[in-house]
Amino acid sequence: MAIRYPNGKKYVPVQKLGQQKKTNLSFSNRGKTLEDELNETNEFYLSRSMAVIHKKPVPIQVVNVNYPARSAAVITEAYFRTPSTTDYNGLWKGKYIDFEAKETKSATSFPLQNIHEHQVNHMKSVSKQGGITFFILKFTSLDRYFITPYVFFEKYWERMISGGRKSITLDEVMEMSTEIKPGFNPRLDYLQAVSALAASYETIERQEDV
Amino acid sequence: MAIRYPNGKKYVPVQKLGQQKKTNLSFSNRGKTLEDELNETNEFYLSRSMAVIHKKPVPIQVVNVNYPARSAAVITEAYFRTPSTTDYNGLWKGKYIDFEAKETKSATSFPLQNIHEHQVNHMKSVSKQGGITFFILKFTSLDRYFITPYVFFEKYWERMISGGRKSITLDEVMEMSTEIKPGFNPRLDYLQAVSALAASYETIERQEDV
Repeated sequence: MAIRYPNGKKYVPVQKLGQQKKTNLSFSNRGKTLEDELNETNEFYLSRSMAVIHKKPVPIQVVNVNYPARSAAVITEAYFRTPSTTDYNGLWKGKYIDFEAKETKSATSFPLQNIHEHQVNHMKSVSKQGGITFFILKFTSLDRYFITPYVFFEKYWERMISGGRKSITLDEVMEMSTEIKPGFNPRLDYLQAVSALAASYETIERQEDV
Repeated sequence: MAIRYPNGKKYVPVQKLGQQKKTNLSFSNRGKTLEDELNETNEFYLSRSMAVIHKKPVPIQVVNVNYPARSAAVITEAYFRTPSTTDYNGLWKGKYIDFEAKETKSATSFPLQNIHEHQVNHMKSVSKQGGITFFILKFTSLDRYFITPYVFFEKYWERMISGGRKSITLDEVMEMSTEIKPGFNPRLDYLQAVSALAASYETIERQEDV
């Protein structure tokens, strides 16, 4: 099934190497997309053997390909597909990590319409199977970042499903999340927050065992 | 960097729904690709809450997109990219699972040229970080399937790097792998073999602890 680009926005092609990115101002980290920040962070983690976490490629249905002689195959017709899982997953200290990263321009609430139902279902499955799953939410206008565990997010998704508001207020996000501050290297040290999260999961499990 | 399709073959577009696949003979499972078999198996695992394992999308660099009024965005120029990780990963009983699936028509050895160096590097990182990583190798002409742990595969890769043979003989594959038999549902119960593998890892760890 072919659809518009998953996040509802028009596709902006990747800049060619050597060509200055308009949004990447050299004097500031403002203007970097959350995806750029996470790619940098994941490269940092990988290079220090701290974690192996990658962004999955955007799912694309290829319909037509040309094979010019002596050069690379060119895809001439293809369509964006809806992703069936989250964008990021991997491994950290033997633990399975799975998350979705989203940004909003709103300063007051986080809209839920850019999160797909099958992504939420995927996170539910991961959570049941013992994985660590969460959102990284960025309020771009506030320059604030939150790690929101799926287990706490769930009730706001269900509120929407049952006819309630289609967003989560900033207060609600703050209450259920760990806020992280952007830095230089790594840009967004989300695993530090996840570490606390994993420890609290283990405490819960130990309590249940008793 | 744009290249030919990662497995070196020309791209065969997905069949339209309702259109009979020429290779999918109704009286036999022969002719199914390994990818089809693994997708079926992973759906089976997911539907029974046994594991959450997905194939990653093929990485594609999009260069041009058209936005016709009132219909889906059409990608009109794009290129296949080299994958930087393995094709499959996910979660099983709280453990991180990561593998690459490859098939060969050869009846005597498994060629290494379709395995990319960065895939092998990725598996090395996963292995170091405590994940379970392996190959699923299919000899199509023999209808035989093997689960080959990365830790055993490594020395044959190094043999090639240091100028040795560019393939692994069937005997070598048999010696270091667990053979699995295809079935009806799940089609390829690879987690059963992985289960034994995980247990043997734990035994090694316990022995190292003593």
